[in-house]
Amino acid sequence: MSYSLGPNQYGKAEVRLVTVSRSSSVHSLRDLTVSTSLRGSLAATHLTGDNSDVVATDTQKNTVYAFAKDGGVDEIEDFALRLGRHFVTSFEQISGARILIDEHSWDRISDHAFSGGSREVRTTAVTVSGSDHWVVSGLRDLVVLKTTGSEFHGYPKDKYTTLPETSDRILATAVTARWRYQGTVSYTESFAAIRSLLVSTFAAKHSLSLQQTLYAMGSAVLEARPEVAEIRLSMPNKHHFVVDLSPFGLENNNEVFYAADRPYGLIEGSVVRDDAEDAGLAWYSLPEF
Amino acid sequence: MSYSLGPNQYGKAEVRLVTVSRSSSVHSLRDLTVSTSLRGSLAATHLTGDNSDVVATDTQKNTVYAFAKDGGVDEIEDFALRLGRHFVTSFEQISGARILIDEHSWDRISDHAFSGGSREVRTTAVTVSGSDHWVVSGLRDLVVLKTTGSEFHGYPKDKYTTLPETSDRILATAVTARWRYQGTVSYTESFAAIRSLLVSTFAAKHSLSLQQTLYAMGSAVLEARPEVAEIRLSMPNKHHFVVDLSPFGLENNNEVFYAADRPYGLIEGSVVRDDAEDAGLAWYSLPEF
Amino acid sequence: MSYSLGPNQYGKAEVRLVTVSRSSSVHSLRDLTVSTSLRGSLAATHLTGDNSDVVATDTQKNTVYAFAKDGGVDEIEDFALRLGRHFVTSFEQISGARILIDEHSWDRISDHAFSGGSREVRTTAVTVSGSDHWVVSGLRDLVVLKTTGSEFHGYPKDKYTTLPETSDRILATAVTARWRYQGTVSYTESFAAIRSLLVSTFAAKHSLSLQQTLYAMGSAVLEARPEVAEIRLSMPNKHHFVVDLSPFGLENNNEVFYAADRPYGLIEGSVVRDDAEDAGLAWYSLPEF
Amino acid sequence: MSYSLGPNQYGKAEVRLVTVSRSSSVHSLRDLTVSTSLRGSLAATHLTGDNSDVVATDTQKNTVYAFAKDGGVDEIEDFALRLGRHFVTSFEQISGARILIDEHSWDRISDHAFSGGSREVRTTAVTVSGSDHWVVSGLRDLVVLKTTGSEFHGYPKDKYTTLPETSDRILATAVTARWRYQGTVSYTESFAAIRSLLVSTFAAKHSLSLQQTLYAMGSAVLEARPEVAEIRLSMPNKHHFVVDLSPFGLENNNEVFYAADRPYGLIEGSVVRDDAEDAGLAWYSLPEF
Repeated sequence: MSYSLGPNQYGKAEVRLVTVSRSSSVHSLRDLTVSTSLRGSLAATHLTGDNSDVVATDTQKNTVYAFAKDGGVDEIEDFALRLGRHFVTSFEQISGARILIDEHSWDRISDHAFSGGSREVRTTAVTVSGSDHWVVSGLRDLVVLKTTGSEFHGYPKDKYTTLPETSDRILATAVTARWRYQGTVSYTESFAAIRSLLVSTFAAKHSLSLQQTLYAMGSAVLEARPEVAEIRLSMPNKHHFVVDLSPFGLENNNEVFYAADRPYGLIEGSVVRDDAEDAGLAWYSLPEF
Repeated sequence: MSYSLGPNQYGKAEVRLVTVSRSSSVHSLRDLTVSTSLRGSLAATHLTGDNSDVVATDTQKNTVYAFAKDGGVDEIEDFALRLGRHFVTSFEQISGARILIDEHSWDRISDHAFSGGSREVRTTAVTVSGSDHWVVSGLRDLVVLKTTGSEFHGYPKDKYTTLPETSDRILATAVTARWRYQGTVSYTESFAAIRSLLVSTFAAKHSLSLQQTLYAMGSAVLEARPEVAEIRLSMPNKHHFVVDLSPFGLENNNEVFYAADRPYGLIEGSVVRDDAEDAGLAWYSLPEF
Repeated sequence: MSYSLGPNQYGKAEVRLVTVSRSSSVHSLRDLTVSTSLRGSLAATHLTGDNSDVVATDTQKNTVYAFAKDGGVDEIEDFALRLGRHFVTSFEQISGARILIDEHSWDRISDHAFSGGSREVRTTAVTVSGSDHWVVSGLRDLVVLKTTGSEFHGYPKDKYTTLPETSDRILATAVTARWRYQGTVSYTESFAAIRSLLVSTFAAKHSLSLQQTLYAMGSAVLEARPEVAEIRLSMPNKHHFVVDLSPFGLENNNEVFYAADRPYGLIEGSVVRDDAEDAGLAWYSLPEF
Repeated sequence: MSYSLGPNQYGKAEVRLVTVSRSSSVHSLRDLTVSTSLRGSLAATHLTGDNSDVVATDTQKNTVYAFAKDGGVDEIEDFALRLGRHFVTSFEQISGARILIDEHSWDRISDHAFSGGSREVRTTAVTVSGSDHWVVSGLRDLVVLKTTGSEFHGYPKDKYTTLPETSDRILATAVTARWRYQGTVSYTESFAAIRSLLVSTFAAKHSLSLQQTLYAMGSAVLEARPEVAEIRLSMPNKHHFVVDLSPFGLENNNEVFYAADRPYGLIEGSVVRDDAEDAGLAWYSLPEF
């Protein structure tokens, strides 16, 4: 009946950081949500409440703000890596750090005014373990929809199958994508190129299943971007049902739809480069059960 | 100790309606959330459960979908008016209808693919009462931010005042605007012009208070758009606090900010045309207590 | 083409206030969200940015916290009234104040530990205008459901009606209730009694329509509680649809349901005491368009 | 530059299922959100859009509703296992299934009326892989707070540390717990016992850090419940800051707090039985990057 402390980590979540670069009369704006988590030799605080090894989460937050001034925020991946390395190298008991950054976008109105509000978020998760590190960047809530060019048929029919086959449906999703970088990367340029490939492939690929669309999107990225070792996509199938207007004497040729909230399909998959550098991670995060 | 039924209304809320126009190979897409509510001689259902006067909310929903096919959705204001008039003219017991429509925007990717995701919503609230009607359109979640050009000082100091005065702060808000139309209106063209005035005035107006900015935004609309009788604006002051970096030996010249969630200021005000057509509404909606 | 400033107010929204009473070893906990808004002679800040009459929203927030210590929070209605009167009497230019308080409930685990998490919120809105005041208290997100004892039939059938009549359905809603007090009130005792009447009437009343249930709930309150001048109820009809299992050779006798998110019915109504003290409000809040 | 399909799964997410047992005049109510996901030989749909192996997510949804009638919902773990085994045994190409169920609780008002609304959710995640299975149950949004009995001091001070040490603070969190069962389990009885241990240990354990509280909570479960092989806890530190009232001439002896939204601490950890049955999972889910 003995037991012991298993995997653990701790940190400060969702530090809201907005920076303004005022070096010219044309200001630039960055809007980030930063989360830090640390792991290492942390048994004492769990077992006895001895906090002599616990870098306070408040200190982690202060470090985020101080580093934003002292060094600045340029590529979010580099900022995350700088934070992660700081914690791992400054504290002997800290062997690993994981820094998550969400970047919220703004559009410029004028030299010093901006409009915002898109739900789409650029993300990065940088893991530092000893002297190694991994950079997994991505995006979420990239909402895309096709009004045609999507079919779904040929699936097995069992006693619980009532779905009619279709050769023309709305296909809509909110893409979450995460990709692992390898080698030297120009992150912002790479992000823009990958995002563009995801969007254009979604639009152009005639779809026989959302799985096929997902794989095409991932493949397009691996095909064109050697700096991506693997990509993982999670794509809800946001159902748009054709409303039955026949009781009202009206035909509905895929013109009027009910957009449903729940349930939704959820398609998750990955495309992996065959000769990718080994991820070799002892841990990325606390693995999900 | 006697009492009686007071103001009441009922309807179907948040009918999700997506329409696709397929008349050419370049599809167009509309994405609406429609709510209907009716009032009239509805005492019986309240007092005895006699539903012979209750147009079922399910019927209201069906009507929304049928009208979207039969007649189509062009200007949301006209679509709302058509729905409202239908209920008021088709059912003797229904004396009034209020139709709310939110329109969610999408950007075109290709002939039949779109990307979406902005939080900003175009709105209308059309009230039909007998043979009269009022059209109140607007927007919400128009997020805007200025990195400079905003001051706040000169306010009274009492024993509870600790706020330091500032001659340079971030000003950020999420605008909710509603304006009442008068006369004949080209709604989509008018909406675009009003939205543009709100954004450009926010950006250009040097701000001594968010109230001043609000009034300038409303005035700009009334100045330029004779079809607007009055405009009402609700603008949260989304605080961005300068982080104190002095403990770390760093100066912070309005470069690093903490974006707070709550509490927030909330500035609400209206600008009214002096010779506006009288609203003369017996009711708009159930008034808030 | 002239125009002028119309109705306006401003304040601090969603001040999160938690208080602990430590006067005995059995602690008590209060968890409030407080919003304040002021109106009065506020043209200058709108027109010229002269803030000499603007009680800063930060000052309003400080006042909330200071009053929570200095005088304490007992009845939320009295706390709101104390705050509102302070602003109106302390500042000549402020003629009116409206204080909204949400109270979040916690259950006691031990002398100084609590568990929380219910969505139901107790509310009050206290309006002070000069030397007058009005107290409108209530609740929201009181979720209730009946598995039987609810019918819906006898409604008119038009060409858009497809809903089948039912003599047995699930009835589920999330009650928002607001009632205006008159006379001298023991608020917490009154709240508990009113909430109990709402719940027990929902459960006991055989329902032929949600309107009938709403009116019965309001009437039960006015019948038993002379301190309530009027009550207003907003009750979404949270649809639970019987799943058609016949394709699978299964009967579904109201046993298996799909709980839909949107759309939902929305039933709003009020019950008013015939000899109620006149509300006589010049304003409650910025009226909704 | 070659690449291939990596880990993938698909299914229907958030099927809302409400069941009523009407076998006696005292009805019982179950309120579940069910998500299913399948994996197996699914390369064809990804690579070519050949769906002959794709059990449609609509079919998965229908199966959930049909099984709810045909066999009923008793223990959510058994219901999930029955669903998972069905998919794996009925379809040769499906080698694994993961069924997630959230159970939302309701309190009884009368024989057939209920009130709801707590945010706390009981959860299970049942994984079926071939003839093996794993049951990981838990809860989330169990909100608990202590007004005293919590200290935090003794942590390292670096140049970014400004947090003052405290020997008395509010400790508040929203517990997410997941535990893996082993052996034969009476799930509902076990759930109640584990939940009770988590709550009572939080309340009783004097806390020198949230990590210590987390470990005590997990240890209490492993100590008392041999059916738990391991437990994983994720506990945000929901900060309650003592408001500085000294500018107003008031002392604040831990009586008046500001409850902050973001950022928050996030403490995650696990307690593992030393002689636990090996989890031996080739996969639980798509591992997080």
